[in-house]
Amino acid sequence: MPSETSLIRQIRALAAAQPSNKRLIKGIGDDCAILRPRPGHDLVFTTDFVLEGRHFTLDTHKPADVGHKALARSLSDLAAMGSRPLFCLVSLAVPQHLGQRWISGFYRGLFALAAEHGTSLAGGDLASFDRVIADVVCCGEVPTGKALLRSSAKPGDSIYVTGTLGASAAGFRTQRGANWKRHLRPEPRVAVGLALAKLGVTCCMDLSDGLSLDLRRLCLESGVSAELSGTLPIARAATLDDSLHGGEDYELLFTASPQVRVPEEIASVPVTRIGTIGGGKPGLINFAGRRIRSGGFDHFK
Amino acid sequence: MPSETSLIRQIRALAAAQPSNKRLIKGIGDDCAILRPRPGHDLVFTTDFVLEGRHFTLDTHKPADVGHKALARSLSDLAAMGSRPLFCLVSLAVPQHLGQRWISGFYRGLFALAAEHGTSLAGGDLASFDRVIADVVCCGEVPTGKALLRSSAKPGDSIYVTGTLGASAAGFRTQRGANWKRHLRPEPRVAVGLALAKLGVTCCMDLSDGLSLDLRRLCLESGVSAELSGTLPIARAATLDDSLHGGEDYELLFTASPQVRVPEEIASVPVTRIGTIGGGKPGLINFAGRRIRSGGFDHFK
Repeated sequence: MPSETSLIRQIRALAAAQPSNKRLIKGIGDDCAILRPRPGHDLVFTTDFVLEGRHFTLDTHKPADVGHKALARSLSDLAAMGSRPLFCLVSLAVPQHLGQRWISGFYRGLFALAAEHGTSLAGGDLASFDRVIADVVCCGEVPTGKALLRSSAKPGDSIYVTGTLGASAAGFRTQRGANWKRHLRPEPRVAVGLALAKLGVTCCMDLSDGLSLDLRRLCLESGVSAELSGTLPIARAATLDDSLHGGEDYELLFTASPQVRVPEEIASVPVTRIGTIGGGKPGLINFAGRRIRSGGFDHFK
Repeated sequence: MPSETSLIRQIRALAAAQPSNKRLIKGIGDDCAILRPRPGHDLVFTTDFVLEGRHFTLDTHKPADVGHKALARSLSDLAAMGSRPLFCLVSLAVPQHLGQRWISGFYRGLFALAAEHGTSLAGGDLASFDRVIADVVCCGEVPTGKALLRSSAKPGDSIYVTGTLGASAAGFRTQRGANWKRHLRPEPRVAVGLALAKLGVTCCMDLSDGLSLDLRRLCLESGVSAELSGTLPIARAATLDDSLHGGEDYELLFTASPQVRVPEEIASVPVTRIGTIGGGKPGLINFAGRRIRSGGFDHFK
């Protein structure tokens, strides 16, 4: 295994080949990265773990899949704020035996997705450990005061989701086909998030832990309830249970007042109306008239 | 063990008791944190792992020690840029059996240090895993173009360090006394970094992996060599080897041109001149006239 210094030199060389970001005054190579913010813009920040044995296994995921997923999770949070990605910081711990090839593969997957979304690698941390651990921080920008929040849903708003639901959970079960590919390589809905902000949508979040749990969180933050009509855009070969409670779809969940005209497709992604926000007990969710419990993924249950 | 939702609620309650930061428009509770940057300032970012079995063990470190150390490592990087801390994001993975008490202890230690330095908790990630893993991201601000860099050392500059060297390595060996306490609770030199920027110092980094390795990194970034005089501020009960190659002192290493008057004490921390920057082969370091190898800590050696 090469030394840490030489590994970092290699990652830096890979990063130098990426599209540059004029507002990143200093990237890899110092104690900190330096960003010169743009006037009239707020910055948004998120951080997400990807842990071996929990979010992936070395048997099922190639290193490039892990790199893709690590960045996709954070970019999906930026998308949910309606923000444009600027840069990421990557903390990566890997077992010595995986070696330089695994690390290069990880960064190849990460850089491919980063390039699609104009995201620069600005720095990070590298350590050896007995399991693979990645923690990716992403920073994005949004015009001042225009970030999409979880807390702005109002009774009477329609509830929408992008794409289809349950694909990732169904793919995880069968480990083949289009759903498995969606599980391995989730697509953060960055372009949709930016378009929603322009449409006048103000309330949005991403679906990482399953519709029933994530919608409950949105309702709690907004102090509202939700009535789901019973119609969901269920992914092919997925079950109703997958689409209600399955995690890792990384679609966007948003609400819009009746005044906002929401098209059936945004940035080439279909959009489906799935229900209405109500003024009932905060966090309460009905599906086709019957109360549903929050399934979804809780790390500590 | 309570659910993830209730754990996050508790952390959020603890965070609400912290001093607020008017530029953090949104903290915990949404997909991202939102920062409204101050005109005329650059933002600096760093991220650092703290891994069980590598940076600490559950036998020797109380949860509050781990929380302190996790934040201290990142704050030390902000200090090295001469920047004022603004906020942090904390990704924390813990085994289920450690439970809520351990998590609360971790955050108690982290919040105590955060309060000392006016740092807000703006968000993060929480997961269960079979080992404790923390990754802390810190963001600070610095007047536009005034960040202290590793790359601005010039031949003829004097080389300085703050405090004493080798305490952490010596403490790690004996696990008692003042040096052990310094190992457990390193003090990031935030006030010193801010003062250095005002003095007109431009080149600085923090000592996390040992003087010989870190000075070599600074020299490589600046394209210079270094002559150490042979006099070092060795901590009581530490060896010369501890002070040259021992990691985790979190003191500041900086250089200054002969025009800059560097006082013997800055922000109540003693400052010692230890050598001179030269124009020899980049990265080459002499100590009392003899070439030394970079010892220090390399994760992959």
